[in-house]
Amino acid sequence: MSKVLIFGHQNPDTDAIVAAKAFAYYQNQKGIDAEAVALGDPNMETNYVLAHFDEPAPRVVKTVANETDHVMLVDHNEAQQSVADRDQVTIDAVVDHHKIGNFETAAPLYYRAEPVGCCSTILVEMFNEAKIEIPAKLAGLMLSAIISDTLLLKSPTTTDVDREAVRELAEIADIDVQSYGIAMLKAGTNLAAKSDQELIDADAKSFDMAGKSIRIDQINTVDLKDVLDRQAGLEKAMAAENADKGYDLFIALATNVLTSDSELIVVGDDETRAAVEKAFNVKLAQNRASLPGVVSRKKQVVPPLTAAFEG
Amino acid sequence: MSKVLIFGHQNPDTDAIVAAKAFAYYQNQKGIDAEAVALGDPNMETNYVLAHFDEPAPRVVKTVANETDHVMLVDHNEAQQSVADRDQVTIDAVVDHHKIGNFETAAPLYYRAEPVGCCSTILVEMFNEAKIEIPAKLAGLMLSAIISDTLLLKSPTTTDVDREAVRELAEIADIDVQSYGIAMLKAGTNLAAKSDQELIDADAKSFDMAGKSIRIDQINTVDLKDVLDRQAGLEKAMAAENADKGYDLFIALATNVLTSDSELIVVGDDETRAAVEKAFNVKLAQNRASLPGVVSRKKQVVPPLTAAFEG
Repeated sequence: MSKVLIFGHQNPDTDAIVAAKAFAYYQNQKGIDAEAVALGDPNMETNYVLAHFDEPAPRVVKTVANETDHVMLVDHNEAQQSVADRDQVTIDAVVDHHKIGNFETAAPLYYRAEPVGCCSTILVEMFNEAKIEIPAKLAGLMLSAIISDTLLLKSPTTTDVDREAVRELAEIADIDVQSYGIAMLKAGTNLAAKSDQELIDADAKSFDMAGKSIRIDQINTVDLKDVLDRQAGLEKAMAAENADKGYDLFIALATNVLTSDSELIVVGDDETRAAVEKAFNVKLAQNRASLPGVVSRKKQVVPPLTAAFEG
Repeated sequence: MSKVLIFGHQNPDTDAIVAAKAFAYYQNQKGIDAEAVALGDPNMETNYVLAHFDEPAPRVVKTVANETDHVMLVDHNEAQQSVADRDQVTIDAVVDHHKIGNFETAAPLYYRAEPVGCCSTILVEMFNEAKIEIPAKLAGLMLSAIISDTLLLKSPTTTDVDREAVRELAEIADIDVQSYGIAMLKAGTNLAAKSDQELIDADAKSFDMAGKSIRIDQINTVDLKDVLDRQAGLEKAMAAENADKGYDLFIALATNVLTSDSELIVVGDDETRAAVEKAFNVKLAQNRASLPGVVSRKKQVVPPLTAAFEG
């Protein structure tokens, strides 16, 4: 059998990169020939994390069937977030913490999903269950992934399992979670360095909701004004993406990681805009709406929006 | 929150009944108010098992939304094998050992699938991971489920994890696996007591393959002749089901549980019959074909048939 490739979603965030590395290490310890790869370059936050722990970035691949016939997925399951030629290979395993979207296989597989804040949290459980020790460097990387996904354990997606994993990993890696976490989150929010196009693409994911193609990007910041001042440019880039890629709706979710509030910027037609207003019980004004207390795309944006489209 | 209902697939087999009971016990130990129910009456084998361990049959339900808004699934995930009103409730958890078919949720959930021979095997792992002791009676029930699904560990679906679970459960329940297992399998194969209609329905499951509606029934026996002598009557019942329920293809898979061989009886049009011939590299003669060494619908019938329809 050829080497198994393990990867997270397109537009990889820290968890997508780290969970692939962690699961590859886990598989290697079980005697499986596996390599962590990525479906894109690391973002600024992930680059900070990799540099901090002196860990190389994974190899970026655009397709997999040219080099293997077996893959494992972490931190995603939906086809539109995965590698383009996924239907040409066998999925041996999935470890994920997202909703399951139209997932289908021809044969039984290993699938482990839990409603926790971070995919790396599930992997901590799996290491513990299999009694595989987590090396200090990997513990630091996995700790970073949980801090990233849960915004330092403040996101409503955070569970006791995530908190316990953070305690365990911080001890192994010997890291002060608060000070390291804030430095890491800030490293990921240097928006001035990014073009409008980069901003709306960096953490964007695609969803199918009742037949509509929805694109949702999340932009973390330490000051919402840094995003809102660029609204005109962002809207222009989002409209171009809608026209180009056939999205029915593009949402940019600007999130203040320190205060846990968000602001939506929306580009779509009347029908999809109406769904947004219904989902969040807001009126869009100048294509914007405030969502106080909203920080989680997965838990606070996708489910109500799905319900609004399907309801 | 209302009580969580836990159930296996329609036409429940021993694993569907037992895994629901085991997962309900597991959830109860975790402090969750959960009840195991079933989507149909126990079959003859399961009745033998329940009587042997003095365990009541679970309550049979046709719908769930009338009494709860939260469910957990064991031993299945596909909508067409599940409760009719599943789209009206939230699926909190799935524990399964089958392929994943068009599964979709609005929110993250607990999903645990492993490519092992029996759903109850995964539950043994989960009890061990959570350090929850398995009571002797439940161990006997779970052992029966694994014997049933793996045909006494002889099915090609059997893994080392199943073998290890059987060792552990047999010790807890203090049971001789071979003698109990053969008595139990034989108890499930009293075909003379069943009408043709009962035979083709007792262990039937529906599948969607490339838009075709496929019904596959498995009939376990200790002598294939007992099934084949009734071919005319079975075909008539299968044709009536196709007309009634809109199946494009009905396959009865008669399996000798002692010799591990099967014979197919097929009712479908030319196109679906051609797919069967392609899938198993056989020629149908009098609507029949021999499949030596085939005992597993899941591993040896569904994947090649899916490939034939989709290829």
